[in-house]
Amino acid sequence: MRARVLIRPKAGILDPQGVAVERALPALGFAGASNVHVGRLVELDVDDAAQLRPMCEKLLANPLVEDYEVQLLDDGG
Amino acid sequence: MRARVLIRPKAGILDPQGVAVERALPALGFAGASNVHVGRLVELDVDDAAQLRPMCEKLLANPLVEDYEVQLLDDGG
Repeated sequence: MRARVLIRPKAGILDPQGVAVERALPALGFAGASNVHVGRLVELDVDDAAQLRPMCEKLLANPLVEDYEVQLLDDGG
Repeated sequence: MRARVLIRPKAGILDPQGVAVERALPALGFAGASNVHVGRLVELDVDDAAQLRPMCEKLLANPLVEDYEVQLLDDGG
């Protein structure tokens, strides 16, 4: 099955990419954006969805500084 | 409103992070993962959802080599 993992900096952990984006947007004429966070997206096919959380803990995310969210996708998307 | 942008390498564009993850998983004991792609995740609050696609074109994604998908989130999550 197709799965998606969303990986974000934990609350309170420095998110320099998010800060950079939030500062750059007004300079490009986009007002009103706030609370910007940048993380990683991993999409993969797996045989066993139960492996996804261990995969995150061991490889995909750094659980010390990142939170992750696993989504199972119905179709191939 | 809260919005999420998923940014992925376009099909056919080299995805070295995806390749690295796909090679590392079996070495860590995870069999059966395939078609692994690594992209970026941007989450932000915006006043005007119509700005999201222009933001992607101009700053968040590189439309030459990346596809993006905008999701509007109902709640603050």
